[in-house]
Amino acid sequence: MKKLFVCALFLSFIFLFTSKTYAIGKLQQDLPFAVSEQTQVCILCHKNVTPGIVEDWKASRHSKITPEIAIKKPVLERRVSSEIIPADKSSVVVGCYECHSQNSHLHKDNFEHFGFQINVVVSPNDCKTCHAKEVEQYSGSKKAYALDNLRENHIYHKFVNAIPSIKEVRDNSLRYVNASENSKMVTCYVCHGSEVTVEGMKEIPSNFGSIKVPSLNNWPNQGVGRINPDGSRGACTSCHPRHSFSIEIARKPYTCSQCHIDQDVPAFEVYKESKHGNIFFSKQDTWNWNSVPWKVGRDFQAPTCATCHNSLLVNPEGKEIVSRTHDFGERLWVRLFGLIYSHPQPKSAKTYEINNKDGLPLPATYMNELAAEYLINEEAQLLRKNEMKKVCNGCHNTDWIIGYFEKLDSTIEETDTMVLNTTNLMKNMWDKGFADASNPFDELIEMLWVKEWFFYANSIRFASAMLGADRATFKNGWWQLTENFYKIHEYARKCGSEN
Amino acid sequence: MKKLFVCALFLSFIFLFTSKTYAIGKLQQDLPFAVSEQTQVCILCHKNVTPGIVEDWKASRHSKITPEIAIKKPVLERRVSSEIIPADKSSVVVGCYECHSQNSHLHKDNFEHFGFQINVVVSPNDCKTCHAKEVEQYSGSKKAYALDNLRENHIYHKFVNAIPSIKEVRDNSLRYVNASENSKMVTCYVCHGSEVTVEGMKEIPSNFGSIKVPSLNNWPNQGVGRINPDGSRGACTSCHPRHSFSIEIARKPYTCSQCHIDQDVPAFEVYKESKHGNIFFSKQDTWNWNSVPWKVGRDFQAPTCATCHNSLLVNPEGKEIVSRTHDFGERLWVRLFGLIYSHPQPKSAKTYEINNKDGLPLPATYMNELAAEYLINEEAQLLRKNEMKKVCNGCHNTDWIIGYFEKLDSTIEETDTMVLNTTNLMKNMWDKGFADASNPFDELIEMLWVKEWFFYANSIRFASAMLGADRATFKNGWWQLTENFYKIHEYARKCGSEN
Amino acid sequence: MKKLFVCALFLSFIFLFTSKTYAIGKLQQDLPFAVSEQTQVCILCHKNVTPGIVEDWKASRHSKITPEIAIKKPVLERRVSSEIIPADKSSVVVGCYECHSQNSHLHKDNFEHFGFQINVVVSPNDCKTCHAKEVEQYSGSKKAYALDNLRENHIYHKFVNAIPSIKEVRDNSLRYVNASENSKMVTCYVCHGSEVTVEGMKEIPSNFGSIKVPSLNNWPNQGVGRINPDGSRGACTSCHPRHSFSIEIARKPYTCSQCHIDQDVPAFEVYKESKHGNIFFSKQDTWNWNSVPWKVGRDFQAPTCATCHNSLLVNPEGKEIVSRTHDFGERLWVRLFGLIYSHPQPKSAKTYEINNKDGLPLPATYMNELAAEYLINEEAQLLRKNEMKKVCNGCHNTDWIIGYFEKLDSTIEETDTMVLNTTNLMKNMWDKGFADASNPFDELIEMLWVKEWFFYANSIRFASAMLGADRATFKNGWWQLTENFYKIHEYARKCGSEN
Repeated sequence: MKKLFVCALFLSFIFLFTSKTYAIGKLQQDLPFAVSEQTQVCILCHKNVTPGIVEDWKASRHSKITPEIAIKKPVLERRVSSEIIPADKSSVVVGCYECHSQNSHLHKDNFEHFGFQINVVVSPNDCKTCHAKEVEQYSGSKKAYALDNLRENHIYHKFVNAIPSIKEVRDNSLRYVNASENSKMVTCYVCHGSEVTVEGMKEIPSNFGSIKVPSLNNWPNQGVGRINPDGSRGACTSCHPRHSFSIEIARKPYTCSQCHIDQDVPAFEVYKESKHGNIFFSKQDTWNWNSVPWKVGRDFQAPTCATCHNSLLVNPEGKEIVSRTHDFGERLWVRLFGLIYSHPQPKSAKTYEINNKDGLPLPATYMNELAAEYLINEEAQLLRKNEMKKVCNGCHNTDWIIGYFEKLDSTIEETDTMVLNTTNLMKNMWDKGFADASNPFDELIEMLWVKEWFFYANSIRFASAMLGADRATFKNGWWQLTENFYKIHEYARKCGSEN
Repeated sequence: MKKLFVCALFLSFIFLFTSKTYAIGKLQQDLPFAVSEQTQVCILCHKNVTPGIVEDWKASRHSKITPEIAIKKPVLERRVSSEIIPADKSSVVVGCYECHSQNSHLHKDNFEHFGFQINVVVSPNDCKTCHAKEVEQYSGSKKAYALDNLRENHIYHKFVNAIPSIKEVRDNSLRYVNASENSKMVTCYVCHGSEVTVEGMKEIPSNFGSIKVPSLNNWPNQGVGRINPDGSRGACTSCHPRHSFSIEIARKPYTCSQCHIDQDVPAFEVYKESKHGNIFFSKQDTWNWNSVPWKVGRDFQAPTCATCHNSLLVNPEGKEIVSRTHDFGERLWVRLFGLIYSHPQPKSAKTYEINNKDGLPLPATYMNELAAEYLINEEAQLLRKNEMKKVCNGCHNTDWIIGYFEKLDSTIEETDTMVLNTTNLMKNMWDKGFADASNPFDELIEMLWVKEWFFYANSIRFASAMLGADRATFKNGWWQLTENFYKIHEYARKCGSEN
Repeated sequence: MKKLFVCALFLSFIFLFTSKTYAIGKLQQDLPFAVSEQTQVCILCHKNVTPGIVEDWKASRHSKITPEIAIKKPVLERRVSSEIIPADKSSVVVGCYECHSQNSHLHKDNFEHFGFQINVVVSPNDCKTCHAKEVEQYSGSKKAYALDNLRENHIYHKFVNAIPSIKEVRDNSLRYVNASENSKMVTCYVCHGSEVTVEGMKEIPSNFGSIKVPSLNNWPNQGVGRINPDGSRGACTSCHPRHSFSIEIARKPYTCSQCHIDQDVPAFEVYKESKHGNIFFSKQDTWNWNSVPWKVGRDFQAPTCATCHNSLLVNPEGKEIVSRTHDFGERLWVRLFGLIYSHPQPKSAKTYEINNKDGLPLPATYMNELAAEYLINEEAQLLRKNEMKKVCNGCHNTDWIIGYFEKLDSTIEETDTMVLNTTNLMKNMWDKGFADASNPFDELIEMLWVKEWFFYANSIRFASAMLGADRATFKNGWWQLTENFYKIHEYARKCGSEN
């Protein structure tokens, strides 16, 4: 501790009387607006300790504009959605200290760091200072509850514990214990987020000798449903990665692709095979990725994930087509992602609260009776569908869109029927004791059944929704749906459990 | 109807006396050559209704040049291959009306649209006005018959109906009915094309109240073998997507990748893993994608699909290496794509007319006796191979090419042998009644057999042809070919049906 | 022969008195420094014969700088690592002749070509003239021994011969002969390299009539472990492809992806799904790919394969973070790539020399007892791990890195346990005669066992190491590890061979 203090003192001394003035002058010179004194000090060390993120920030919009200027832009051009910005943050650029020092009383990860009170984790609640609407929308979305929707749902919880766990055969029988926290941290929680908790302080080595930092559990993590040490939910950096917080990156499909990828949610693969993807990959370098609002046809000529699902779009003359949303389900009426069937979008973001007729926290029973009271009604579906159609209309005429959605509706129905037919076979095996329903995810035949709805039916639906044909056909498509069904049938036949 | 009329009248009024003059003036200002009056009117509405495609067109070459100028370019630089352009289309840029109004007498999808007679679908027969040679080449190619080659071939027809169809188990036995049209529309027909037919008119909502448009079946669709409402075959937009009709996009492998993708035709995956792909992905942004003719080494440093299979190539001094072709099989001697064996390219684009020794419409019998009279002879193969070698010679010396083709020949032979060995096992099962040959695609064991030639042997051949090693080895390669063979063998052994 | 001579004479004549002076003048005009006379003559023909590689070279650094200038750069900026450059190569740019004429006495592929003594293959030993350190590092690395490590290891040798070989069923039993050389050339040897040998001369056609060239076996090939006709090992062109020899291409992940790809080494797939990949794919076009040394944060904002594994990195102020290495294992402590278990990096590049407690050339026994004397000790591991941590520190703080490595360590342990549990099942089957251990790779059940460690455990480890969650979960992840384990268990249960 004393050593650390001496170090810090020495450091301060050096900084104050020699390089500091020059270095800060240099930094300030590179940037058009004032950098807070605290941020200047952060950078003095961190440009050596973690130069990559300092440079990333210097190339970002955050380093080049102050909130008081940003807030004065015309409404559609504004990236700052809060109506009022606190005075102390208003006239300096958004630097290290501005973000890492906020709401310290809420942050269990707050600690004294070379004279400053710093939060390790910047949370949506901190970003809210300037981006209030986005955080509000996000906080009520399924993404914000991605972790709880796994672990508070006793069905999915079984899944999470069964899959990434060590299996062994002992005394001729197959056994496993629940998956370890570390195993979940590199599988499910990468996307769903972890609960980051603080357990006292620990010493770590640094360039200036050993220093004390908060000891975080379930860290590092950037999953969309992360529960932060201040109690807030989400990680803006999932899509606006550090420390550029780029809108460009968030608008490109590579970002979404980190999680929306096969086998279970092959959105990116389907996109890659679609005409939209074809045009994006061919022409992206000529598009305007940073323009706000985003002009259809002018700034880009084919949609990315963000275009359809969340961006504020205007026509080339600046007239709004759809407004920005950070609730990524807001333009979606049906949930293609089968659990185990596709279903209308849930009303509440907390899907673990669903209680279907069989008493299970699933949007439909195993026999596909919808838990309708937990799902949006037809009117709400129509409203959302119309919102999406406005996006389609950016390039496609109405009849085209009608024809396209007809096919999607047909795909949904047919794949759900296939899932029902498969589940009938599975149910017979459970009923007749050829499989054990107490955990529906931990036997070989059950895994085949899961693949039918989780991998193949999903893939076909996404493929139909975004027209990537192969994913509906030979790659986790009807081919695999069929082959797997045959396998399940053969297994059932051998058990003598067929209907 | 009356409402519509009033709307249109009102619209015309507004247009004529207020915004029209200004808006048209603005449009014309942006473009170097005259825009036809009709196209100007199209754009007046559509810049609001479907702004994306209007902008896309405005950024395209079509909006920036007139046919009479385009046709005067030196021969190798010409993108227009017709010798004569009709006078009325000659001196205006190629706009909405120029394309959507052609040959209206042939178009069953022609309709009156705000005072104009418009075709919904622009077909190759329309593009032919300026691009005669390309359409002629394409119309005689296998691509143009991609739909008929599926549905007129009674073997493949069974395949198409079996795979994307709903299966169920009833009374202990597996049943299915033929795949629905919608199911085919989001699987096979996405690539192969659909037959777009017209069934009267229908009303759809629009910004100006309800309007009447032709009621199209099997629409939307951009498959390469689409049969259009004017009876022509193909969809130029498959590769030159709307409304930029870009040569750049067509030259990039993302375009071909929409259909030439694993499991059955993993051309793009192989390319991605090849040295050619490695260089393309690393350096594409510095290449000249719009240059005609395309200069080897100068405009690009590694080939894409188009380079080898269809582009007009010249050396840096402008001397022709190979001529442009829109018959994409023209530089191919062997068809790697096994049905069920690889084989010399078919003579006719209508492959459903093939009749092999077993009386089947397949290029070889199940025992790999070629239907030689339907396939090009050795001389023709040599001519085509030499054409391809000219492309290789752009960068590789002769001995390199010889060594490379030797390996490919060996791969073809070895994979065909594996398919024969597998088919022998399958044939025994059919002969002995352990499987039913009447439809060779609808039992589990048959699906394993299909995977052997359709997925794995194909993958290995493509991998050898374009040197993407993994696809010959561990990813749908010899590993899977072997593992699957072992499975078939085990199945056969259990049936007691082995040879 | 005579015909050839006349041709050559005629050619020389034409060149000398007409086009030569002009053409050479033109070439020289394009380039800032002197081109050797010999190279000028090479180009006179080859700009027509293989224009692509001539243009590629003209766009390369090799054509634009002389070694004597390159060697004078400040140390960290130097791309030339040799201390002395031979005088005759010093003041001309690095052209065709400069590379293809070196060390001709060592080159069995040296031949007389239109008056010049030319080597077909340029080897690392030739590149060493200017790039001594890189070649030295590479020559002692596992990559240089990639071929021998396959074929000199009797276990892996069985694998190589079993997989890409033709199988057949005769007299009710499954048979195969060893894989053909051609089959290996399009599978294993594409990445591992081939042994290029010379077998006299052969005649090939050329633009100037038939010419004689060395007859090479196992050619073409650019595998990393290629054994060249001069006895040297490796192919610099694997990563710096011809004839740009670009550092940009080598730094991009597409290069590594040719071989480090699923199923067995899914490094590129994991990268694509990681946040690093997300940023790379979104922002790569704005990065400085040719800067030496490579400035963290300034030149790039997310790492590629090269960044972490071999590049010389400096901070934005030019201070070295890690030095360049062409031994790609130098910053690696553990070998995630399980054979059959993960293990500390081997001491020697010749891994076939390992001899474990069971007498097998594997880094661990089947029961995971490490062959410790052949593997680096804990101290050496720590040194290497610290080297890698320096790279991480470019952007991540120390505690982040600690948390991240803890998870990786846990993944390694858990996946190795799963492999052990699977191998126990396999071993029982071998012991009880349900499978034949003499070749552990050529039965169906053995292939399932191999998939467990070769495909799935590897995928999970790479996914944990670079945080591409899907590859640890649903795509060759814990899902497949589990499903496959269940299958092996079921097979074992049926055999009655369980433990």
